[in-house]
Amino acid sequence: MAEESSETLHALGAALAARDGSAFLNTAEAIHYADLAAAYEALENDDDREFFLRTLGPERCPDVLADLPEGLVAKALQVFTPAQQRELLAEIPDDDRVDILQAVSDDTRRRLLGLLEKDEEELTRSLLKYGEETAGGRMTTQIGRLSADCSVQEALDTLRNQLEDTETLTRIFLVDARDRLVGKVRLRDLAFSDHGTPLREIMQPAELSILATADQEEAANMISKYDLAALPVVDEQARLLGVITPDDAIEILEEESTEDIEKSAGLTGETNEVTYLHTPIATHFRRRFIWLLGLAFLAMASGYVMLRFEGVLNGAFLLALFLPMVIATGGNTGGQAATMVIRAMALGELEPGHSAKVAWKELRLGLLLGLILGGSTTLVSVVLLPAFQAPLPPGISFMEFGLAVGTALAAQVTASTLIGSLLPLMARSANLDPAVIAAPAITTVVDVTGMVIYFTIARAFLGL
Amino acid sequence: MAEESSETLHALGAALAARDGSAFLNTAEAIHYADLAAAYEALENDDDREFFLRTLGPERCPDVLADLPEGLVAKALQVFTPAQQRELLAEIPDDDRVDILQAVSDDTRRRLLGLLEKDEEELTRSLLKYGEETAGGRMTTQIGRLSADCSVQEALDTLRNQLEDTETLTRIFLVDARDRLVGKVRLRDLAFSDHGTPLREIMQPAELSILATADQEEAANMISKYDLAALPVVDEQARLLGVITPDDAIEILEEESTEDIEKSAGLTGETNEVTYLHTPIATHFRRRFIWLLGLAFLAMASGYVMLRFEGVLNGAFLLALFLPMVIATGGNTGGQAATMVIRAMALGELEPGHSAKVAWKELRLGLLLGLILGGSTTLVSVVLLPAFQAPLPPGISFMEFGLAVGTALAAQVTASTLIGSLLPLMARSANLDPAVIAAPAITTVVDVTGMVIYFTIARAFLGL
Repeated sequence: MAEESSETLHALGAALAARDGSAFLNTAEAIHYADLAAAYEALENDDDREFFLRTLGPERCPDVLADLPEGLVAKALQVFTPAQQRELLAEIPDDDRVDILQAVSDDTRRRLLGLLEKDEEELTRSLLKYGEETAGGRMTTQIGRLSADCSVQEALDTLRNQLEDTETLTRIFLVDARDRLVGKVRLRDLAFSDHGTPLREIMQPAELSILATADQEEAANMISKYDLAALPVVDEQARLLGVITPDDAIEILEEESTEDIEKSAGLTGETNEVTYLHTPIATHFRRRFIWLLGLAFLAMASGYVMLRFEGVLNGAFLLALFLPMVIATGGNTGGQAATMVIRAMALGELEPGHSAKVAWKELRLGLLLGLILGGSTTLVSVVLLPAFQAPLPPGISFMEFGLAVGTALAAQVTASTLIGSLLPLMARSANLDPAVIAAPAITTVVDVTGMVIYFTIARAFLGL
Repeated sequence: MAEESSETLHALGAALAARDGSAFLNTAEAIHYADLAAAYEALENDDDREFFLRTLGPERCPDVLADLPEGLVAKALQVFTPAQQRELLAEIPDDDRVDILQAVSDDTRRRLLGLLEKDEEELTRSLLKYGEETAGGRMTTQIGRLSADCSVQEALDTLRNQLEDTETLTRIFLVDARDRLVGKVRLRDLAFSDHGTPLREIMQPAELSILATADQEEAANMISKYDLAALPVVDEQARLLGVITPDDAIEILEEESTEDIEKSAGLTGETNEVTYLHTPIATHFRRRFIWLLGLAFLAMASGYVMLRFEGVLNGAFLLALFLPMVIATGGNTGGQAATMVIRAMALGELEPGHSAKVAWKELRLGLLLGLILGGSTTLVSVVLLPAFQAPLPPGISFMEFGLAVGTALAAQVTASTLIGSLLPLMARSANLDPAVIAAPAITTVVDVTGMVIYFTIARAFLGL
């Protein structure tokens, strides 16, 4: 249970502050590397960070380094001598090593690659070919891999020799003479089968695999959908390259969810693994500014419409009471519709091909929402406005006014619901990321249409 | 790879339409249960669904049923005779069985429990005690569990006998005489150790565990943070009850992300496992209506402010050109700040205790964004408005007007950024879910403050 860890972390902080190396090491012994990485990230000055890493030393550091946000790794590595860096890099699992090398500058990458043993360097270089966000860029090659033509006894002997180098034995994959994936066995099948049994007799077909060049999100979605303990990654010739595991899938899905959530709020740039509090103001600024600026100037279109309808507004200034409501409700219903559609696309439930079905569903929904909201607004106007002796120009009755406002709201809600659901589908058709079309962009678009709808209907109904 | 599956699914649909039972069964043979569940869900009439399940039969159905959205399970079960239902329920893993029983009516639950064997019924009843969203409600009890006092040979013999009933052997947990969790071994440690070795010599301490009554999200976050292959679930006496696995964690995290995303768009009610297209209009309506209505009437506060400032707006109607921009930009920056803070809280990076740090960060950020956006707006006004011969009342210069509008925008952006970041933290302090405070609610709040800020500053600067 996690209760004790906050005390232990406190003790770690105290040892660090006192620069007491042996107390620090003793305490760190009992702390999970993920907590050590979080503690390191929370440090605020370089001296503390240097003491932290130097004291842990190159034996304990690999797990911690592999768990740090990418942006912090290059600087952390500099604390060590080249000989220590060599030791560190050799200890880090291959997929994490590739992540680290992808995060540093080209020069540093070349230098670090030069430190590796010949065969590790080659392996790492071949993994670096795959983009960071592909299945190949995420996989580990340190897997149990056996020839399909051996027996259970031979299999166990081979695995015993590979033990040091394998990250996962949950699923063991079988290949033919050309390294092509042909099946899989579980360690339990080996442990509890007669030792003379040929593997081909107990293996399961490996039906699911993914191309190394496929998007990492596709791999994560397959692991999620099919509850896989390991998803084999293959090349164009169906040769087994490595596997992606559920912990990779969790990380990928969390990254993608964060990205979608952030994009939908108009935040640009890559999701940063550094925590909110440790992200510098400049980065926060950069991620927020462009959309704010762009949407601000787009919003002037609404202002322009309002300016053009000066006569209508001045003809019955009471219209101002319902203006923000009509505009905002359009933004809200459009945002809801967009969110549902975008999430359904992210979960693989919807594609642009479904546009007609979506439109039909949202049209009916928009009409239903619009009629009820519009009707309530008419009712409220007719009942409450006379009671408060709200100022209407002569010749216009409260009933006429209420009907105008209610009709405008109904029209705005229907239009916005449709626009909100269809814009993300159109974005996907145009190969844009639908998440960037969400709430803020939708709101700005339906603000403009809402202004036009509101004043046009008011003018027609009230004869202004 | 998944390429062939769309053809196979097509063949399945054809066999279904032709009511060709043997072709259907043969095709279904090659299809993963997750794909079968999705195909079942996509069916639109009851006859098709009945044929689908009856033909698959009670042997093949358990996996498919366990993978269906909860709302569809009760009806699916009705297709079978009580004897078949008994067979089905016995085949379904314990955690999925509990999920299904939680989804049906009280009457059905009682009846189905009555169908189970005595010991299965007791186990299921004890699992049903835990809430659906707790660690206990999610765990599987079908795990490898050994006494810490046996040898590797005894361990392997015990596991061989349990093979049928264990869902996962990735991690095997060791208990003492009172069933308390004391350690863990991996199957590979057993398979490759000398058979006489006592388990205590090769076991690892089981440092991480979770109480059965803890929230499922906490369990998922631990699995994610510590890359666990299995997280043991214990009771108050530290007795081992079961484990939660990474595929549970993936499901929990996806549910929680969807919930957060939906709440942040003002969607109420439980996230439905049924896909967007198969959710009836009535459900969509129910999830969207309340927030729309509530926020619509709140938005009338903005309208009221506008009405009160009639004199200012009529004094310089050009103010209308920048009104939507000032209001909308406040909503956008507030939404961005809220999104970042809410996501950071969901990832466990932020708590209400950090409010002062957040406020200080967002205040500086708000000022920076506000000054740059406000400055640009002043510049644009001073340069462009005279060029278009925009109508200003006598006695007010374009410079005065530009400064008023720019200052108002800067004030609105600063205030909204602060409000957007702090409201979710305040919600969490008050034990409300911060996600419901996001975009739409923030927008409505800063719409009102924005109206006041805009007209107050305009009146002061322009002397209206």
